[in-house]
Amino acid sequence: MAKILTTDTSNRKEIIQKTAAALFRQKGYNATSMRHLAEGIGIEAASLYNHINSKEELLRDICFGVANAFIVHMDGVENSNLTPTAQLEELIRFHIRIRLERFEEVSVNNNEWKHLKEPHLTEFVQLRRFYQKRWEAIIEKGIEQKLFKPLNTYVAVLTILGSMRSVEFWQRSKRNVTAEQLENSIVTMLTSAMQAVGK
Amino acid sequence: MAKILTTDTSNRKEIIQKTAAALFRQKGYNATSMRHLAEGIGIEAASLYNHINSKEELLRDICFGVANAFIVHMDGVENSNLTPTAQLEELIRFHIRIRLERFEEVSVNNNEWKHLKEPHLTEFVQLRRFYQKRWEAIIEKGIEQKLFKPLNTYVAVLTILGSMRSVEFWQRSKRNVTAEQLENSIVTMLTSAMQAVGK
Repeated sequence: MAKILTTDTSNRKEIIQKTAAALFRQKGYNATSMRHLAEGIGIEAASLYNHINSKEELLRDICFGVANAFIVHMDGVENSNLTPTAQLEELIRFHIRIRLERFEEVSVNNNEWKHLKEPHLTEFVQLRRFYQKRWEAIIEKGIEQKLFKPLNTYVAVLTILGSMRSVEFWQRSKRNVTAEQLENSIVTMLTSAMQAVGK
Repeated sequence: MAKILTTDTSNRKEIIQKTAAALFRQKGYNATSMRHLAEGIGIEAASLYNHINSKEELLRDICFGVANAFIVHMDGVENSNLTPTAQLEELIRFHIRIRLERFEEVSVNNNEWKHLKEPHLTEFVQLRRFYQKRWEAIIEKGIEQKLFKPLNTYVAVLTILGSMRSVEFWQRSKRNVTAEQLENSIVTMLTSAMQAVGK
């Protein structure tokens, strides 16, 4: 794994964070010790504390880092002049891509967030709920404009977000499907899932 | 939680298994001790060993129990005279229902299976892969009959199975959506996701 050879602090932090994401995903947060982390990076466990305060700080940085990327992207989509159909496609494509590019961090964000300590746990849950509400608002608009089926927006958002977890399994098993085929198949399925009949 | 007041061995086993599923889901398999389990059931930790051999045996019973329910249902669907469209709907409805009725066991099956020991781990992964192949075969048939879009069957199955994870989140948060609304919304979305254009 990556060694800390650099004196650049931001790079060093990044290496620690990437190694933590890989280990948390692979072993689970609870089963990963500071010693595992130090070994993964290639430094002494004691000197790890020169760079970070705790294991939980790393989890927090990973979870909120991913959450923030989703929020920034959502800001852009909401402020665009795109139709609800195009906004939905844009959100779906971003989700698939971030899951491919930063799949270890996204997997930790999805599966290990429950180990966050208070007040961060509550803050994280609220951020996510609010993010899902913004998806719901876009779908609501699409339903009003008769672009989408009159579905329950809460169920629709959960179903769409759940379906994109498939990317994680693809990443693990690779197979004879390219990232582009994967993305286009999912976009086709989810846009027809939402599209009003006859549109 | 449930106490072991019965002398019926199969009932007793069932109570232990249900308590284990609830705890494994809530705390995770690794973080659940035999002592937690005994407390949950309301017996002494030592006497728990009169009923089961190990914590891993419980995990195995839960994971293979759920896997077996899926396989038995798939046998019935394959042997039916239903069209691929109706077969798909039948599989989707069964998945949603079993997730609602046995959501703790299904959640353990989905999230904790990786803690199975060999040879059970390999056996479980193979069972699941073979089960997904049977979904793929039904979708392949639907594509041949021009009922479904010409999607990559592997991606389609992962996306459908992933999307039904939404049921787990609904279960956790309840909200103003009935189980029937949930089921019908998901079925509508997933059947239109698959349906060939113009069908």
